Amino acid sequence: MSSLTVGIVGATGYTALEALRWLIPHPQVDVVAITSRGDSGQPISSIHPSLAGKTELAVEKFDATSMAGRCDVVLSCLPHGASAATVRELVEAGTRVIDFSADFRLADLETYENWYGVKHPWPEMLGKVPYGMPEFFESEITEAKLVANPGCYPTSAILPIAPLVEASIVKTEDIIIDSKTGVSGAGRSAKVGMLFCEVNESTAAYGIGVHRHGPEINELVERITGDSIQSIFTPHLTPMNRGILSTIYLKPSIVDLKDAVGESMATLTKAYQNQPFISVVEHLPATGHVRGTHHVQISLRSSGNRLVAVCAIDNLAKGASSAAVQNLNVMFGLPATLGLN
Amino acid sequence: MSSLTVGIVGATGYTALEALRWLIPHPQVDVVAITSRGDSGQPISSIHPSLAGKTELAVEKFDATSMAGRCDVVLSCLPHGASAATVRELVEAGTRVIDFSADFRLADLETYENWYGVKHPWPEMLGKVPYGMPEFFESEITEAKLVANPGCYPTSAILPIAPLVEASIVKTEDIIIDSKTGVSGAGRSAKVGMLFCEVNESTAAYGIGVHRHGPEINELVERITGDSIQSIFTPHLTPMNRGILSTIYLKPSIVDLKDAVGESMATLTKAYQNQPFISVVEHLPATGHVRGTHHVQISLRSSGNRLVAVCAIDNLAKGASSAAVQNLNVMFGLPATLGLN
Amino acid sequence: MSSLTVGIVGATGYTALEALRWLIPHPQVDVVAITSRGDSGQPISSIHPSLAGKTELAVEKFDATSMAGRCDVVLSCLPHGASAATVRELVEAGTRVIDFSADFRLADLETYENWYGVKHPWPEMLGKVPYGMPEFFESEITEAKLVANPGCYPTSAILPIAPLVEASIVKTEDIIIDSKTGVSGAGRSAKVGMLFCEVNESTAAYGIGVHRHGPEINELVERITGDSIQSIFTPHLTPMNRGILSTIYLKPSIVDLKDAVGESMATLTKAYQNQPFISVVEHLPATGHVRGTHHVQISLRSSGNRLVAVCAIDNLAKGASSAAVQNLNVMFGLPATLGLN
Amino acid sequence: MSSLTVGIVGATGYTALEALRWLIPHPQVDVVAITSRGDSGQPISSIHPSLAGKTELAVEKFDATSMAGRCDVVLSCLPHGASAATVRELVEAGTRVIDFSADFRLADLETYENWYGVKHPWPEMLGKVPYGMPEFFESEITEAKLVANPGCYPTSAILPIAPLVEASIVKTEDIIIDSKTGVSGAGRSAKVGMLFCEVNESTAAYGIGVHRHGPEINELVERITGDSIQSIFTPHLTPMNRGILSTIYLKPSIVDLKDAVGESMATLTKAYQNQPFISVVEHLPATGHVRGTHHVQISLRSSGNRLVAVCAIDNLAKGASSAAVQNLNVMFGLPATLGLN
Repeated sequence: MSSLTVGIVGATGYTALEALRWLIPHPQVDVVAITSRGDSGQPISSIHPSLAGKTELAVEKFDATSMAGRCDVVLSCLPHGASAATVRELVEAGTRVIDFSADFRLADLETYENWYGVKHPWPEMLGKVPYGMPEFFESEITEAKLVANPGCYPTSAILPIAPLVEASIVKTEDIIIDSKTGVSGAGRSAKVGMLFCEVNESTAAYGIGVHRHGPEINELVERITGDSIQSIFTPHLTPMNRGILSTIYLKPSIVDLKDAVGESMATLTKAYQNQPFISVVEHLPATGHVRGTHHVQISLRSSGNRLVAVCAIDNLAKGASSAAVQNLNVMFGLPATLGLN
Repeated sequence: MSSLTVGIVGATGYTALEALRWLIPHPQVDVVAITSRGDSGQPISSIHPSLAGKTELAVEKFDATSMAGRCDVVLSCLPHGASAATVRELVEAGTRVIDFSADFRLADLETYENWYGVKHPWPEMLGKVPYGMPEFFESEITEAKLVANPGCYPTSAILPIAPLVEASIVKTEDIIIDSKTGVSGAGRSAKVGMLFCEVNESTAAYGIGVHRHGPEINELVERITGDSIQSIFTPHLTPMNRGILSTIYLKPSIVDLKDAVGESMATLTKAYQNQPFISVVEHLPATGHVRGTHHVQISLRSSGNRLVAVCAIDNLAKGASSAAVQNLNVMFGLPATLGLN
Repeated sequence: MSSLTVGIVGATGYTALEALRWLIPHPQVDVVAITSRGDSGQPISSIHPSLAGKTELAVEKFDATSMAGRCDVVLSCLPHGASAATVRELVEAGTRVIDFSADFRLADLETYENWYGVKHPWPEMLGKVPYGMPEFFESEITEAKLVANPGCYPTSAILPIAPLVEASIVKTEDIIIDSKTGVSGAGRSAKVGMLFCEVNESTAAYGIGVHRHGPEINELVERITGDSIQSIFTPHLTPMNRGILSTIYLKPSIVDLKDAVGESMATLTKAYQNQPFISVVEHLPATGHVRGTHHVQISLRSSGNRLVAVCAIDNLAKGASSAAVQNLNVMFGLPATLGLN
Repeated sequence: MSSLTVGIVGATGYTALEALRWLIPHPQVDVVAITSRGDSGQPISSIHPSLAGKTELAVEKFDATSMAGRCDVVLSCLPHGASAATVRELVEAGTRVIDFSADFRLADLETYENWYGVKHPWPEMLGKVPYGMPEFFESEITEAKLVANPGCYPTSAILPIAPLVEASIVKTEDIIIDSKTGVSGAGRSAKVGMLFCEVNESTAAYGIGVHRHGPEINELVERITGDSIQSIFTPHLTPMNRGILSTIYLKPSIVDLKDAVGESMATLTKAYQNQPFISVVEHLPATGHVRGTHHVQISLRSSGNRLVAVCAIDNLAKGASSAAVQNLNVMFGLPATLGLN
């Protein structure tokens, strides 16, 4: 089989760099076009010096027709709001798209416009785009012209929560999700708050009660399980480049907490038995255990009258770019693990 | 007034080093003796090279009578279990002691022996030693021969929780305390898990449901407020030297959440209006804001149906060594802020 | 004696924040005015949240007459080029100034204009402003209206080199200065290259052969010793907030290398015997040993046919803001160590 | 072709973990045995939790005959001194070995025994073992029963120096090599000096004039070029997990420095034109550019009368474990880049 031709839109950020890190050695992929608003003509290695010696690609100006003509699939690494219009052009020009932004993750227009504060440029698509989590939506992704790549925090929360809600081991109310992320989640634009000296040797909460990944978690758990949950999501910034650790406080439906831990571990193990990159482990996960990889580690403990689930992912990998590669494999019928080891 | 003479027992660890960092420039203190089991005779600056040029002190072997003869007060930086017997010798030899360990923090012998797994060498003292948090126990500390210096995590949890429970703004049940600490809390002994490469670029939960600071938080909030609380405490390790950020999920008693936030902020502001080192702030605290200082920053938000309090301290300063200096000031009638700026 | 009134111009950067960290607890100083172009009226603690609870100062618009009327001395934390004109206004309005920029460090106009690429707004002052290193220029500083606060890298290089050149223990040729700095030296403006994810987990050389601190080192060693040296200076960026370590390769004049090490150590020890903050130590210095302090650690080894001097400072403290406090003490006849412990 | 069977001796350290990271996804390799003195029977993922979900391998007790019977090649990740005897057993039992230790890198017994302070258990092999740098010793490696995997620092120094010495563009005298490493080079044994809090936020020189990689650099440059060089090597510890940046000060033979830079860049470019992982780049390399990869970046500048070469590698990858994979590819006639992207 000849290689898939892949394009990337929005090439200067960290998720695009990470996508290239995964796609360049992928045995069935040729990256043929990368675009950026600001830096047309430059070799991509002058923007990301870690690509020196790895690719000769240069950044070009975006042209939907040209990209659609050359690419079997395009990854859009644009921010929300900006992405939807570009994605629409690409899809209408006839190529398949994996969208890294939040623009097509939510099904409900009102929720989107309330939380993101922008008018949606392609509202009729909402609800028709599969959420790019093949663990739950594989068949929809296989067929899709457009896939909504999941948010980083939601990935770390949905994977442990959904099977437990589905199995009714935990209650749907008063779920508390306390997440800790590395700094790359903030992107690569120059902001004082993300300078090394601001972030290093410091941990901070932010966006309490108002972060947009809260509704994404709630809506997706409902889409997967049919059960509406009531959760609180608090993100924190910690001094590391990569990684998300989510600590999730759940109320067990089972009276005996030891039983609840055992059943929860068994349920998660079974839910992901065919997912080679999701490990339900005895030890407590650390983000360092999955750094730079597509792997997910989940474990569970009890504390007081709560179940506490802990989930570690790499926010740039399973939380963004290797998840897109996983979706690409599914969309084109490639082996599920190709290029992901 | 002539200077207080101060001794330090257990001089090789981080809390002793930090105590010296605060005591050496303290205008009313002379550090006259420091002891260690292993390194007798050595200049302390050969153990802690950051003390080069700051002190000529050498480490001596511990002798209770000698120390009591020379010191107005001794700081015991020994670990729990080991500390109580030494503290007893010192107190019986006639000197006052501030104990950094957990040995005299809890009032209940059974709780202590269950959670710490050791027989207490001086059980009759339990319940008679003030908890070294002058914000709540100033008069007891003033009189005390022995003060139990608070735990680092409990400091970051008790300060925001106690006034809110006291004022009945929050319910006593289902309090969730999710704390993130720097690595110095693990001490200075050689352990693979605390090597730079294990901890750097990684965040991890540990001790879920079994960390000993859980019962300390519960017991102290009850001792302060008279109300028994039911809380869950989860510590996390983040890649920084210093700092604790505690994110605390509380259930408001007040129906309107906006009102609850406002009343909570007002209650905390009032509770600490005479505490120059505790700031109730509008912005969300970060550990970097209080790094290296005795300061505490607390703020509050709502999220879903919860109040979320965030508290930042430096675990080695207000969480250990500058807290001991604050206690020393109170014990000897010195100005409250002396040597703490 | 009543307190000195101090003003700070350019209050939003790291050196101004660090100056406040030293000046607020200084027992003979009142900071009475801080100015900034962009943020007039705001409390300084909203720009630097670590100042919450420490000062009520608000940022004001710069006015030379007003500042001169209220301040015994003003610290200018503006960048080079911008600083000289402001400094001139302040001095002409009658106040004394400590200038953090490079504008008055070099005596030679041509060297300045070549290396800094700007026209000097007050060229007639060049050569009349003492270099703010009281170790060598104490009497000039005592009298001065204007003092040029030293550069961070030059501080770490001049302190070990000057006494050895003075004593003719080392040759003046082929001196190689390889320096490693923390990131705060790059300032607090938003630049992609200083984002956490760019700098963390990475070490890089920069400015090889073209960094402006090269000529500053050469000129000052000559001003101090009378001997012209020929040195090469290479700065490196390492992932830490603070600290400079300079490794300096010198050619000994003495044939026997062991003798050369011994004589060099003795010479440095003697040179700094009255400088309580400069320690000539047996161990190899690390920037962590002096972090957050005004202290300097210097040591020496031999390697092949070279003497290798190693010097550690905190770039924001002795490399900038505590050095300014030291100059302030000298300018106003205060005890040399006041406020520096 | 069926896969090569590979064994690893000394499986608990960082280089063994890194070797597994490279070998597990290698398309022509099956790791069939890993051994360790202390942890027999345990799954390797309980020692290195980042291997959870990636391998079922358990650690076994070392037995040379058994390993030789099962393995086409064994990687010895033991420390120097301990490695040579084990390597001998393995080679004599009939398997090929790549030795990560320094035991067979030097050809001269006296140099080895002087610098390493141990008696060599297999001295007759010295001088007969190729240095595992296929850039210079490809044909010897192809044939070898035993290959000496290069030291991390020497890799970063030899690659830029050797071609320039070979081409006589630089003088052989007074070469100064100032290297900065991440902490993983210190290994995974519990030492106070490598604790997070000791190393974080600190940069330090160590081993000045006495580090064992000094003679390795000198001997290998001579073995490659025939010219004896006189160099000084100074290692530094910086707060990052991985990476070495070597800054190398060379004296040009060419009078015009601009010409010298140009010729040097051209010489290096030509020397490595067939080496896909070695990039001679215009920008100044940073260790972050090559982190986690087998890539090397080299650049050059002039400063004063010196050429300054800068070389960045990942100490665990090209400095250790991916270099072993590269050697394995050469030893068994596999494509040079297999498993290295």
